[in-house]
Amino acid sequence: MNHLQLFNNIIQKRSFLCVGLDSEIEKIPSFLKKLKDPVFEFNKRIIETTHHYTVAYKPNVAFYESLGSEGWKSLEATVKYIKKKYPDIFVIADAKRGDIGNTSRVYARAFFEKMHFDAVTVAPYMGEDSVTPFLSYDEKWVVLLALTSNKGAGDFQYHNEDGIRLFERVLSLSRKWGNENNMMYVIGATHAEMLKDIRKLVPDHFLLVPGVGTQGGSLEEVVKYGMTNKCGLLVNSSRGIIFADNTENFAKVAGEKAREIQLEMRGFLAERNLI
Amino acid sequence: MNHLQLFNNIIQKRSFLCVGLDSEIEKIPSFLKKLKDPVFEFNKRIIETTHHYTVAYKPNVAFYESLGSEGWKSLEATVKYIKKKYPDIFVIADAKRGDIGNTSRVYARAFFEKMHFDAVTVAPYMGEDSVTPFLSYDEKWVVLLALTSNKGAGDFQYHNEDGIRLFERVLSLSRKWGNENNMMYVIGATHAEMLKDIRKLVPDHFLLVPGVGTQGGSLEEVVKYGMTNKCGLLVNSSRGIIFADNTENFAKVAGEKAREIQLEMRGFLAERNLI
Repeated sequence: MNHLQLFNNIIQKRSFLCVGLDSEIEKIPSFLKKLKDPVFEFNKRIIETTHHYTVAYKPNVAFYESLGSEGWKSLEATVKYIKKKYPDIFVIADAKRGDIGNTSRVYARAFFEKMHFDAVTVAPYMGEDSVTPFLSYDEKWVVLLALTSNKGAGDFQYHNEDGIRLFERVLSLSRKWGNENNMMYVIGATHAEMLKDIRKLVPDHFLLVPGVGTQGGSLEEVVKYGMTNKCGLLVNSSRGIIFADNTENFAKVAGEKAREIQLEMRGFLAERNLI
Repeated sequence: MNHLQLFNNIIQKRSFLCVGLDSEIEKIPSFLKKLKDPVFEFNKRIIETTHHYTVAYKPNVAFYESLGSEGWKSLEATVKYIKKKYPDIFVIADAKRGDIGNTSRVYARAFFEKMHFDAVTVAPYMGEDSVTPFLSYDEKWVVLLALTSNKGAGDFQYHNEDGIRLFERVLSLSRKWGNENNMMYVIGATHAEMLKDIRKLVPDHFLLVPGVGTQGGSLEEVVKYGMTNKCGLLVNSSRGIIFADNTENFAKVAGEKAREIQLEMRGFLAERNLI
């Protein structure tokens, strides 16, 4: 999928929502735990009620890894299910990988060949040769961490050299490694006011924005400072959707929550004359 | 395992070698591929011929993930095998994880509870709350990336604020998050001359040093600038040992290569009167 196709999907769905499949086994409704693969069964039901309102899914790999090889199977089954039933939906492995070139190449193979993710989140600390192996695939994306939504973002990401903060250096260096069709950036919604500066460095790239909802970021602010004329935003919500209810109605409630956010997003897209 | 126990193992084995189990399926001798779990069978044979000469094993998780849930099974079997047969050997998951606190907590569970690794490598980019969840386990360690061995290390790790480079800020901030019994640092052997400065910031912490061998770092230089009175070094070699031969003799040759390095290490330990 390229930049324009992603934008077209946004127009069609009238949504730039990404649903985070942070499907922690302890939080899954207990009646599902009798089934053979509870995590996959949970995801499948969430996907069925939310897919109308979302252009992307983002499983966070941690929640699958914590179950070992069984969890990895649930992850594989989830990606396969989405890509088969809803091939236009963009699927991001939230994995935050990054290693020496020889090893990043193998991680890329894991997420893009063994599984069929469209994108993988990558940490920039190890620099260019840790990122570029992920960029050698057609229509696959790197989502590079730039300014994350957590408190610890302040520890290093603001480290300042001659007025250039580390996250700005990450943006300005890395935009040369890829392009708008294979690279996007993680910018936490908790730093929405920064989006103004960030858009000066990456005016057209898509940004993946976590931190709306549970973590306290505002969708309105994100849109105000971050939206481009091709939308340029994927806003993620995880726990606020998938764990909004934990009875037998969980999937229905998740669908309603996704629908609420999609309606808000539709409003913002209309205001900007994008739909 | 704590700092002193690790040092005692080094004294006993007269070695501070860590063998990297970067067991890429394509590089494994073909006769093993007929077996049910070739990666585990490969590792088992390598472990049997190298365990006398090494105090640590470090599987790089990428090579297992690239095989999906099957690879994850090989990884689980490998850790289980080492911890059962050689409980004194320190086992590091080279995973370079790191996420918001809620998620790092789940990664810690994956590596320390679901599997029984002693340590996991963590990327510092997301700051304190992405690292500390790994530090809440007794006798488990974080190995934090500080100055990596690859070319891309220059892109951000040298980013300089008022004379303090990013990797130095990582060292000086993070040493307060943990202590010498639960935190060590990755310092690439390709920057051996930097070890002098690094030892001013972390005089006693263990350093995990990759990059000797294939990547061009010198063991002698690493020892010269990095060794402490409790050794304070784990020097990793991966491909130079495990893929030194790919005939039916591979394990024997791997053992010989490990033995060669161990002899060199014994010399350095003796020179410093540590054995």
